[in-house]
Amino acid sequence: MGFAAVDVIRAKRDGGVLSDEQIDWVVDAYTKGSVADEQMSALAMAILLRGMTPGEIARWTAAMIASGERLDLSSVPRPTVDKHSTGGVGDKITLPLTPLVASLGAAVPQLSGRGLGHTGGTLDKLESISGWRAALSNDEFIAQLARVGAVICQAGEGLAPADRKLYALRDVTGTVEAIPLIASSIMSKKIAEGTSALVLDVKVGSGAFMKSVDGARELAQTMVQLGKAHGVTTVALLTDMSTPLGLAVGNALEVEESLEVLAGGGPADVVELTLALAREMLATVGIETDPAAALRDGRAMDKWREMIAAQGGDSGAPLARAKEIEVVRAPQAGYVAGVDAMGVGLAAWRLGAGRARKEDPVTEGAGVLLKVKPGDPVNTGDVLCELHADDPARIPAALADATGAFTFSDAAVAAQPLVIDRVA
Amino acid sequence: MGFAAVDVIRAKRDGGVLSDEQIDWVVDAYTKGSVADEQMSALAMAILLRGMTPGEIARWTAAMIASGERLDLSSVPRPTVDKHSTGGVGDKITLPLTPLVASLGAAVPQLSGRGLGHTGGTLDKLESISGWRAALSNDEFIAQLARVGAVICQAGEGLAPADRKLYALRDVTGTVEAIPLIASSIMSKKIAEGTSALVLDVKVGSGAFMKSVDGARELAQTMVQLGKAHGVTTVALLTDMSTPLGLAVGNALEVEESLEVLAGGGPADVVELTLALAREMLATVGIETDPAAALRDGRAMDKWREMIAAQGGDSGAPLARAKEIEVVRAPQAGYVAGVDAMGVGLAAWRLGAGRARKEDPVTEGAGVLLKVKPGDPVNTGDVLCELHADDPARIPAALADATGAFTFSDAAVAAQPLVIDRVA
Repeated sequence: MGFAAVDVIRAKRDGGVLSDEQIDWVVDAYTKGSVADEQMSALAMAILLRGMTPGEIARWTAAMIASGERLDLSSVPRPTVDKHSTGGVGDKITLPLTPLVASLGAAVPQLSGRGLGHTGGTLDKLESISGWRAALSNDEFIAQLARVGAVICQAGEGLAPADRKLYALRDVTGTVEAIPLIASSIMSKKIAEGTSALVLDVKVGSGAFMKSVDGARELAQTMVQLGKAHGVTTVALLTDMSTPLGLAVGNALEVEESLEVLAGGGPADVVELTLALAREMLATVGIETDPAAALRDGRAMDKWREMIAAQGGDSGAPLARAKEIEVVRAPQAGYVAGVDAMGVGLAAWRLGAGRARKEDPVTEGAGVLLKVKPGDPVNTGDVLCELHADDPARIPAALADATGAFTFSDAAVAAQPLVIDRVA
Repeated sequence: MGFAAVDVIRAKRDGGVLSDEQIDWVVDAYTKGSVADEQMSALAMAILLRGMTPGEIARWTAAMIASGERLDLSSVPRPTVDKHSTGGVGDKITLPLTPLVASLGAAVPQLSGRGLGHTGGTLDKLESISGWRAALSNDEFIAQLARVGAVICQAGEGLAPADRKLYALRDVTGTVEAIPLIASSIMSKKIAEGTSALVLDVKVGSGAFMKSVDGARELAQTMVQLGKAHGVTTVALLTDMSTPLGLAVGNALEVEESLEVLAGGGPADVVELTLALAREMLATVGIETDPAAALRDGRAMDKWREMIAAQGGDSGAPLARAKEIEVVRAPQAGYVAGVDAMGVGLAAWRLGAGRARKEDPVTEGAGVLLKVKPGDPVNTGDVLCELHADDPARIPAALADATGAFTFSDAAVAAQPLVIDRVA
């Protein structure tokens, strides 16, 4: 085997730089099971606390890609460009963005995941559409990408299996928040997916797991470098996640809001971010056009319907609605100073929109529907948000989180910029 | 359950101080299996890299003691005092020391372990005596202690079971070298054993796992404080482990050398350290006498025979001798500048004196017999040491380690002091 796991752990623990051979060996041996979970978790903690050089991160990513298959999208007759968000509350951008960019000539291969914790998962949201199925074979995925230009589906088991195993381990061992491991996890999947270009939406703020702009910028730079090193044109936007995106947080609720955007309406922040990311995606593949037009004239909506139908979904079927609705009212008059993303995310999770363990089901209609955004004036007793749930027992705890998410001020508050920085 | 493992891990990972409740919970839950190995190893790595406050270490130690039974030695009619060494090459001191101190009126309850890696284990050494058995019940242990005043045996399963589980985990996850975990591991076992006083021999140097005096002093201070906090009078000596203790390294070889010491002879360094530790042990229980006399006049040897016989051993039976002996010769004339403890320890381990995995057997007669010590003059071709093995195939690799352990100089080298410091 060439190495002992404990020597690799010790090297990183003591602040050393792992050799290419050590990295290749430990990732391979962990995937195959000859390095044990308790050894990899100790190594992950050492990586979190000691860091990795850019060279180590690049090799670790390459080893994760090499643990599985790498898709070949060369048969797709359009330029491929994907988007990845590090995850936020109310972040339904993938839903309008994918058909929008596809309607303008690019092919968007979106391999997505399910939600765990306070942020929702794209697949969970789409599964609230009657008949829609998340699981496609690699051949189905590539065929739909070639024919429709847009596909959002579950990543196959064959892509970066080392990452799948490591991610589950990090989740229970307090080692999620390591930039080298976050960057290599995201990029190994996206590179293995075969896209030629990638736009990253790196979230910053209370609802994101990167709480500081500096940390988010470092993560963005690391991922952009990794993409380039593997021949994937990569650009990142740093965007605000101190407050939820849009008004809807929950599965069916977010599909509904996405449909408003595809119909040319929707909340200003969702539209702004959808267009900003669409412009970046189109630019990476050399398509010069204004994406706003495709929202206005229905091309994006047509592509949405085509994409949903291709996976068995009935885009005309009514969406689930929760059985119970409770409202949160303003305790004072003034201006909304902030709507904390984490508080709203937790409330939606408690209402049934998210899951505590990956086996848990989600409630399609559950979630939070905001009625105000930061900067809005309110009078005492105005409705701040609605809590939607099927099970009334879920409401009291969610009510506490949601109520605590709102802060007020006497004077109007300037809105935060949504796009904070760009890394290319 | 009160806590989630991942929250405890994160708190330590981020440099926080764990609460008493968190420590009690995580040690108990790990012992019972509801905190998984991969979670505890991540926590151990975080403790290694972030450290623990004295308060955290004290509570962690208390939680490990509370995971099992604590022996009551109040029925023993003599004052109890134990010795613990952090482990070194050729460290057979427990063998002459235990009967020596017992012969002078104290009771010495020595719960010992087996060797793993390059340092030998006291039980492995004693098992080269025909008939001697390491396993005693708690009742047998206490009865022998009361009757003979000296007992060296295997620690029962009931003492600090949390430590047993955690030690095995640390061994494979690169988390052995954490001072809080070393100190709590040693002291939880010694406090649970019920001794009223304890003298610690903290080794420093290439053959010890503490390589620096500062690290060893910090470990010693931590353990002395823990002992005092639990009502155990505790003193520590910091002693040199850059070169093996004595001339013999191996199981039967070390018993033989111990018998020389008990007969009033033996290598000067082994005698010096045995007496230094004996004086400390006697002082902690208020016995004022010169232990050197008991080596000269045979009282210590008589107690040895009594102690061995009490556990079924035949102290008159011939000891095993290895089938093969190879010699290492001086490649040059001059003075021996150093005999590296780690090199000699590895050579003895490769010859069969130690084990790679805890299930492996050891070879009674195997080991290294030094013929020179640092400072000795040599001529080209003089024998530096003998390599003893049953299996000739084990000799070549050991030869390389043993040969590399010797360094030479043209001028005589001043000897290092054996006792470096005292912490009380």
